[in-house]
Amino acid sequence: MKEKLFFRQLFDAESFTYSYLLADTESGEAVLIDPVIENVERDLRLVEQLDFKLKYVLDTHVHADHVTGAGKIRELSGAKTVVGAGAKVDCANVSIADDETLQFGSFTIKALATPGHTDGCTSYYIEGMVFTGDALLIRGNGRTDFQQGSSEKLFRSIVDKLYKLPKETKVYPAHDYRGQTASSIGEEMRFNARIPSDQTLAGFVKVMEALDLADPKKIKVSVPANMKCGQLQGA
Amino acid sequence: MKEKLFFRQLFDAESFTYSYLLADTESGEAVLIDPVIENVERDLRLVEQLDFKLKYVLDTHVHADHVTGAGKIRELSGAKTVVGAGAKVDCANVSIADDETLQFGSFTIKALATPGHTDGCTSYYIEGMVFTGDALLIRGNGRTDFQQGSSEKLFRSIVDKLYKLPKETKVYPAHDYRGQTASSIGEEMRFNARIPSDQTLAGFVKVMEALDLADPKKIKVSVPANMKCGQLQGA
Repeated sequence: MKEKLFFRQLFDAESFTYSYLLADTESGEAVLIDPVIENVERDLRLVEQLDFKLKYVLDTHVHADHVTGAGKIRELSGAKTVVGAGAKVDCANVSIADDETLQFGSFTIKALATPGHTDGCTSYYIEGMVFTGDALLIRGNGRTDFQQGSSEKLFRSIVDKLYKLPKETKVYPAHDYRGQTASSIGEEMRFNARIPSDQTLAGFVKVMEALDLADPKKIKVSVPANMKCGQLQGA
Repeated sequence: MKEKLFFRQLFDAESFTYSYLLADTESGEAVLIDPVIENVERDLRLVEQLDFKLKYVLDTHVHADHVTGAGKIRELSGAKTVVGAGAKVDCANVSIADDETLQFGSFTIKALATPGHTDGCTSYYIEGMVFTGDALLIRGNGRTDFQQGSSEKLFRSIVDKLYKLPKETKVYPAHDYRGQTASSIGEEMRFNARIPSDQTLAGFVKVMEALDLADPKKIKVSVPANMKCGQLQGA
């Protein structure tokens, strides 16, 4: 029994980032979501070992805590880079808007604009799985206090869009800091600590305002680099 | 569509240990493999949120790098603890021998004695997945230089037993230090760095002898505690 859709979660222990490799095992066409620049060699070795051909590298947003591997992977593999249209990343090959789709092999990726953590945050829906970036996290959600953050927008993105997906949809975020690797829409609607499905907008805004977070260590390097598809300044 | 078998990988970022929660979603009966004592609260909260009833807590072996959560979970949930017979852990409720099975809901766990990293190392096969502990790792394998380690035994365990499983069997180890979360028997047969399927016994023994590894930081606490199902000395 050969599975048609290949799925592999990958982890970066320094920034606690999850990357995801998916492929159509028939045609070999593959996509990589949220790669981290330090892991490009590991990720491309896996792609090569499995005889996949990388078609797209997708970022869920302009990350503030790590530098994307997208640009480097494009250079090395010829894959096209994809970022949400709202992120205004000029160097991306594809600026994908809400509801637009991409194909790899016989599979379809559907972009869901889910702004709020940043303006350009985009979730990707593929075959019963949703890759939520820093919009919806496991039992939590992305911060809204920098990079065009807006608790109101994030509330609408999660409640009106992500929570409208079927409850059994698997949730794969860009980060988790407590060793949780996956969730489901139904689980988050019930057990999300900040935004369960019965949370109000006012209640959520209050919760988010009460957070008092330090800036990510790498924000001053990561954001400018990620606006250039991961090109480090001076490089 | 409700899935019948629930699967969730969990991670401990201090010891780079993977734990696994599996459940029959019809009956709610669940098993937890290789829990870490520091994460017991997290793991039991998840079991409770999902309305599961923990039937067994399984250890793949007497770990040297972290203290098992098995004893504490038994105390808190009433689950039975399971360890391979070769480990000689007297406090375990079930000492499981090679080829013996356990049931949870409508699913069967099959024990595969896979000694070599330790004498009592046991892999667990469940529905196309094999939980290999420290016997077979992703692109590697467990060390054989302490705790009754034997490169000869480990070679036989991997080549004669694990590599005889169907190639598409998913491999879930107890650890990975490079952000790899899963593999398959077919992948390891081709790409394992130390023991691909064409490796010889003599070649493997040589590779293992050349490793020069420091003891795990927690070995002096972990091994005695794990021989007592995770009871810390003096506790």
